[in-house]
Amino acid sequence: MEIKIVRQILEWNENCHAEVQEQLDKSNVYMINIMGSPGAGKTTFILRLIDEFRKLGIRTGVIEGDIAGKIDAEKMAEIGIPVVQLNTDGACHIEAMSIKNILPEFNLEEMDVIVIENIGNLVCPAEFDIGEHLKIALLSVPEGDDKVEKYPLMFTRADALVITKYDMINYFRFDVDRVTGNSRNRNENISIHKVNSASGEGMQGFVHWVTEKIREGK
Amino acid sequence: MEIKIVRQILEWNENCHAEVQEQLDKSNVYMINIMGSPGAGKTTFILRLIDEFRKLGIRTGVIEGDIAGKIDAEKMAEIGIPVVQLNTDGACHIEAMSIKNILPEFNLEEMDVIVIENIGNLVCPAEFDIGEHLKIALLSVPEGDDKVEKYPLMFTRADALVITKYDMINYFRFDVDRVTGNSRNRNENISIHKVNSASGEGMQGFVHWVTEKIREGK
Repeated sequence: MEIKIVRQILEWNENCHAEVQEQLDKSNVYMINIMGSPGAGKTTFILRLIDEFRKLGIRTGVIEGDIAGKIDAEKMAEIGIPVVQLNTDGACHIEAMSIKNILPEFNLEEMDVIVIENIGNLVCPAEFDIGEHLKIALLSVPEGDDKVEKYPLMFTRADALVITKYDMINYFRFDVDRVTGNSRNRNENISIHKVNSASGEGMQGFVHWVTEKIREGK
Repeated sequence: MEIKIVRQILEWNENCHAEVQEQLDKSNVYMINIMGSPGAGKTTFILRLIDEFRKLGIRTGVIEGDIAGKIDAEKMAEIGIPVVQLNTDGACHIEAMSIKNILPEFNLEEMDVIVIENIGNLVCPAEFDIGEHLKIALLSVPEGDDKVEKYPLMFTRADALVITKYDMINYFRFDVDRVTGNSRNRNENISIHKVNSASGEGMQGFVHWVTEKIREGK
């Protein structure tokens, strides 16, 4: 499958995220923004999520955000997922204008969900609305349990926190209560999930939650 | 030990990094900028490095960069290290102006090295010279072996790459040759080290390299 590569243009438009969402709503497409540090496991999580969506008949497209390259987009294309690679050429986050420019690359009428893999960065992506219906923050067990205090905005703005690489819980000092407590103190409605994306363990709870959200949002 | 907290001011001064380095050189102080993703193990690495420096009679101060809080500065203060906490209030990297404002907080005449723990971010800190003599990039094994291709600037500009959490090499897919090869392709002089900061394994090679650099730079 061919991978279209789009470069990010940093043209500022304050209302762009609302325009994107409006366009998605017209086509009845739901957009999910996946954020987290480099190596938090965003790609593996998305691959697992798409697999679960497929079982449920939910048709998914992916926008892969990367500073450079198309390593993850190739993984999506390999399994036949419509994917557009967005290269930010150094920029540390995705902006709504880029999503607006990319949407015409998809056949939205044949799509239910677009999943965005944002740039690996626990800081900047949290500041930007890009037209998504849901913001999902991933935090992997090896990153440590102090990240909510250190990078508060991400966990304050996320609709859900997914603790990834949960199979590694016995190999790292990681106090789950510290993470969940600090998240809920900042964001009482945050939905928290523990998953091992590679094996699929823990995914059912997240899939149940997110499909409810999609149903409500449509 | 009391921790001074300084807030970052985003006043732009293109030559500020040169001013910082000039001021350090006058006092014969060497500055090392430690960068890497959230959870790459920067704090543990710095604590181990300071311990090694102490054994060699190298007097060290630390500037702890964080968006919020002073969790890591407290760890430094606990072991009697002069430390200043720099809170960026949301900003994704440290700028030279902040370092310039912080230097008067240290007694530079009684110091050999200042170690800076930059914001956990593999993107933005790589773009900014802050007056340091050395840039060190940390990449932890759990983050994965595709990070050099995805975040090239960090590895292009670093003087050394330290692969941390190396004791976890058998638990994650991590092809060391891919990482070292991709780093050297971009940056032929990069010095590469594999360490377990918690146990100290692999630190001797890095300490040998960095003390040579300090000696040359003074």
